[in-house]
Amino acid sequence: MALNRKKVSVIGGGFTGATTAFLLAQKELADVVLVDIPKMENPTKGKALDMLEASPVQGFDANIKGTSNYEDTKDSDVVVITAGIARKPGMSRDDLVQTNQKVMKSVTQEIVKYSPNAIIIVLTNPVDAMTYTVFKESGFPKERVIGQSGVLDTARFRTFIAQELNLSVKDVTGFVLGGHGDDMVPLVRYSYAGGIPLETLIPKKRLDEIVERTRKGGGEIVNLLGNGSAYYAPAASLVEMVEAILKDQRRVLPAIAYLEGEYGYDGIYLGVPTILGGNGLEKVIELELTDEEKAALDKSANSVKNVMQVLA
Amino acid sequence: MALNRKKVSVIGGGFTGATTAFLLAQKELADVVLVDIPKMENPTKGKALDMLEASPVQGFDANIKGTSNYEDTKDSDVVVITAGIARKPGMSRDDLVQTNQKVMKSVTQEIVKYSPNAIIIVLTNPVDAMTYTVFKESGFPKERVIGQSGVLDTARFRTFIAQELNLSVKDVTGFVLGGHGDDMVPLVRYSYAGGIPLETLIPKKRLDEIVERTRKGGGEIVNLLGNGSAYYAPAASLVEMVEAILKDQRRVLPAIAYLEGEYGYDGIYLGVPTILGGNGLEKVIELELTDEEKAALDKSANSVKNVMQVLA
Amino acid sequence: MALNRKKVSVIGGGFTGATTAFLLAQKELADVVLVDIPKMENPTKGKALDMLEASPVQGFDANIKGTSNYEDTKDSDVVVITAGIARKPGMSRDDLVQTNQKVMKSVTQEIVKYSPNAIIIVLTNPVDAMTYTVFKESGFPKERVIGQSGVLDTARFRTFIAQELNLSVKDVTGFVLGGHGDDMVPLVRYSYAGGIPLETLIPKKRLDEIVERTRKGGGEIVNLLGNGSAYYAPAASLVEMVEAILKDQRRVLPAIAYLEGEYGYDGIYLGVPTILGGNGLEKVIELELTDEEKAALDKSANSVKNVMQVLA
Amino acid sequence: MALNRKKVSVIGGGFTGATTAFLLAQKELADVVLVDIPKMENPTKGKALDMLEASPVQGFDANIKGTSNYEDTKDSDVVVITAGIARKPGMSRDDLVQTNQKVMKSVTQEIVKYSPNAIIIVLTNPVDAMTYTVFKESGFPKERVIGQSGVLDTARFRTFIAQELNLSVKDVTGFVLGGHGDDMVPLVRYSYAGGIPLETLIPKKRLDEIVERTRKGGGEIVNLLGNGSAYYAPAASLVEMVEAILKDQRRVLPAIAYLEGEYGYDGIYLGVPTILGGNGLEKVIELELTDEEKAALDKSANSVKNVMQVLA
Repeated sequence: MALNRKKVSVIGGGFTGATTAFLLAQKELADVVLVDIPKMENPTKGKALDMLEASPVQGFDANIKGTSNYEDTKDSDVVVITAGIARKPGMSRDDLVQTNQKVMKSVTQEIVKYSPNAIIIVLTNPVDAMTYTVFKESGFPKERVIGQSGVLDTARFRTFIAQELNLSVKDVTGFVLGGHGDDMVPLVRYSYAGGIPLETLIPKKRLDEIVERTRKGGGEIVNLLGNGSAYYAPAASLVEMVEAILKDQRRVLPAIAYLEGEYGYDGIYLGVPTILGGNGLEKVIELELTDEEKAALDKSANSVKNVMQVLA
Repeated sequence: MALNRKKVSVIGGGFTGATTAFLLAQKELADVVLVDIPKMENPTKGKALDMLEASPVQGFDANIKGTSNYEDTKDSDVVVITAGIARKPGMSRDDLVQTNQKVMKSVTQEIVKYSPNAIIIVLTNPVDAMTYTVFKESGFPKERVIGQSGVLDTARFRTFIAQELNLSVKDVTGFVLGGHGDDMVPLVRYSYAGGIPLETLIPKKRLDEIVERTRKGGGEIVNLLGNGSAYYAPAASLVEMVEAILKDQRRVLPAIAYLEGEYGYDGIYLGVPTILGGNGLEKVIELELTDEEKAALDKSANSVKNVMQVLA
Repeated sequence: MALNRKKVSVIGGGFTGATTAFLLAQKELADVVLVDIPKMENPTKGKALDMLEASPVQGFDANIKGTSNYEDTKDSDVVVITAGIARKPGMSRDDLVQTNQKVMKSVTQEIVKYSPNAIIIVLTNPVDAMTYTVFKESGFPKERVIGQSGVLDTARFRTFIAQELNLSVKDVTGFVLGGHGDDMVPLVRYSYAGGIPLETLIPKKRLDEIVERTRKGGGEIVNLLGNGSAYYAPAASLVEMVEAILKDQRRVLPAIAYLEGEYGYDGIYLGVPTILGGNGLEKVIELELTDEEKAALDKSANSVKNVMQVLA
Repeated sequence: MALNRKKVSVIGGGFTGATTAFLLAQKELADVVLVDIPKMENPTKGKALDMLEASPVQGFDANIKGTSNYEDTKDSDVVVITAGIARKPGMSRDDLVQTNQKVMKSVTQEIVKYSPNAIIIVLTNPVDAMTYTVFKESGFPKERVIGQSGVLDTARFRTFIAQELNLSVKDVTGFVLGGHGDDMVPLVRYSYAGGIPLETLIPKKRLDEIVERTRKGGGEIVNLLGNGSAYYAPAASLVEMVEAILKDQRRVLPAIAYLEGEYGYDGIYLGVPTILGGNGLEKVIELELTDEEKAALDKSANSVKNVMQVLA
């Protein structure tokens, strides 16, 4: 009857996966297993060891293990999937979808085998379709398979608004529905600085520019880096979702959830406001939408369906 | 008479520099400016923006700016230097020293120009000689030019000991003198688990192995990564030193300090136990050494002098 | 040019003052001086020492000093005033006002003498009139004399809403204008759970009950305790304001600010949304109010004026 | 299979119990139930509510419940006992022991009834005998009944040493064996500043004074307060032990443990270095003692036995 440490496995040892592992350990949320393919086992072990060697100085107690052996993920409480490839020049969207679909299937089989009770959070793009793939492949109830996109999108939005108004990010909130990036449906009327609706603080034209910058937020980082994509903010976003689940916090966070009638959609994964807690997805929160918002959400849902048709 | 935020500039936007910037901001220790050469300006801006976009989620208030313009570093309280090249295959040690010496000189001129009152912490290797170079070039008093190596070495040592004894890293302490890596002089008799001397807890042979692993700790990560070197633990170590200074904590930490008679050395930078606080180096702590320890420290000091002879 | 620790003095060593001191030190925001009258010097020293003895275990570095000598407060960056008496049975409101007014005057003279550049935050009740008294007595600009009430009122409101909806307090926000307690003007339309207006989540009748409970929130604690009043939440509220100022965070927080025309009032202190930063009160945020809200705020302002007429 | 929050019950709603509850919640270690006798139910509820109302501002998610009903403690992971009376003028030591013994018995029956798998930590004085009483009454294995004294004693010692040397408390460690207060056996040779033995940093005479001050540390606070005893540092000490257990940290901490042959004692509870983790007491660490230390520990053990003879 000993009190045991929590365990989180992060699949994919790239920058996002590694940063996620570090931020989880830093908060002492769980012991962390960072998994990559056999070819990448040594670099993954190297990253894990380097992080662990930071622990005495940063003052956290958590084991971090790099591995290519899924047996090490046994009995994980939460599994985060960051594995998969990024779209390369000349690659069709369909190729991307199908390649990552294969990765999701194989990764999911391993997760299910070793952690049949885990809650899974998916980051891999295109995230709606990949979360759906993991859901189907796992056979898990919908509560235990969730995708990330809205926490990151709102984080970017909040950053830009805080800069615009020269205020603390702590007092700026944002709200998005729908898919990631271009398909994002920002609900600006539900976004505030210090509780004050942004629409009363920032001219509409400027607010539209900020929304547009948020939509292109991932691309902005890609363009600046030149060689790679964002990983700090995506990792932080994953960690917030994992924390809400591990601590049963019942946070209100946007997540990619499986819809069965909510918002008028059925059988697809889509970004909606949710409550995250110890059961994973505790609830989808349904809001009344304006016609304009509903139209934008329909467009986003159609994008998701289009991608789903590419799934093998 | 407003209360102003502290400001820390990190020179070198590679993994160590970027991670240092992130950990500083995360602790809300200061606003951070991450500086790299003009060619790397965009990637540096990208990293800084990505970090900033993590701030609403991680809940920290700190600006992080990527730049190649030293004017942005104006009036920094502390400047951390991580810039420089790593030794490449076929490169002689002397080439490395002289190349990084040039980098230190040029970087230091910019720091002095914009932040004449800053405290400088150097990480670039070979760190003893590079700290000396910055000291000479800056004209700063010795209190305000310090090098990092011992915090990292002891962090690695503590990690390995905690693993060996299956104890929390929080209760394991370590102690090193001398240079970084191979020249490290571990004072095992001043290293403890829960206050109990390690020599009474771990057989000498095993302890020697752990010391040896610590000495080669940087190489272990390099070998695992295959392409690059450690950055989490080095960054965490820098941050601990910066925090001690910004908060005037008077921490007892190993640092590379300019010696003027202490331990019998004069005019060289060497790793010794120090007190770090609001003045930078508050004090070098002198310990009585055994003959064996003194001999090892002499060897370490000679290594430093050998490298210094290569300085242009 | 050493980097110095920040310094905060807390006037009044009762439970609220002591808890404020502890929470400030715990966050390593500053060294703290806890001041009480000579008769209470020893108990104040005892509390300060007890807190300090918690620091090695809690892992914070901050000096905490108990004293009755205002010389110890010299050069404080921020001074928090919790001193004063509570209303006792049989005491008229006017007696309370005049007694605490005397305390404010004498305390303010000492603050001004030793820390002429400090920013002062007042908690003592009736807080609007007491903040005004400190403002007048100090001769400080309005930016540097602020009162606390709204952070606490919203904290209580957020607590009750989070319980009602069974959600994390982290995702619930509240918004109040006007005076403390009965005179509180809650702007429910600016209060949210996860960004969703509370009015769409909770029936109006129930929301009214929660608002009423918030208004009586201080009394609820007084009644339960039987002998004393709340101090944890008041102290936490003060600390949030102090942190915003010390770190120049530009937080959007409700505060009791001196109005010169804002919201149509002139020459009174009243609870309004503000931006707090390194200058103290950076700005009063003006909102358009509904007629109902304006009427409630007028009522609150009249209460303040009535109390002010009692000032000697 | 949901992830559940941890639960800690604190028996005794006085200052130490309440502060313990607050510090536990603040760290989000668990939901907390604060229990007192029926007569004190309302004040206990008041304190719990006040703490909870601090949570939105301090940013922690944890329920805190005040109660006099042990049913609310059901399925606690850890239970902390702070209940009992303090010695009053004119009360014999034997009266104190027997009164608190009765309290321990009755409290323990309730704990066992509702949380048969809990780990219990006892603070009530005389702590060795009270921990023994709880152990016997509970029928729990020795791993799950532990007393607190050494963490507090070392915290005080570390505070005084840090002041003496003007160093950060973070770099000062201490080590004690034996009973609380006068019976404390400080192992100064295992106490360090920055890893350097204190004996080489502070003259023996001064060190003796500091040891003596530590022994009388509780009394120093009692004398200063005039009316009551220390609670911040005792609460922080309890929280460190609870955290080590809840997070299975395997910390090396002094604790009052049931000895069965260790250090030559059998069948008594005595303060010794231990490893605390998910099983509660993971291990008693045995050190070789000097003759002088062994004599002091014998004296301490005899004091414990003398008190135990008073137990009914």
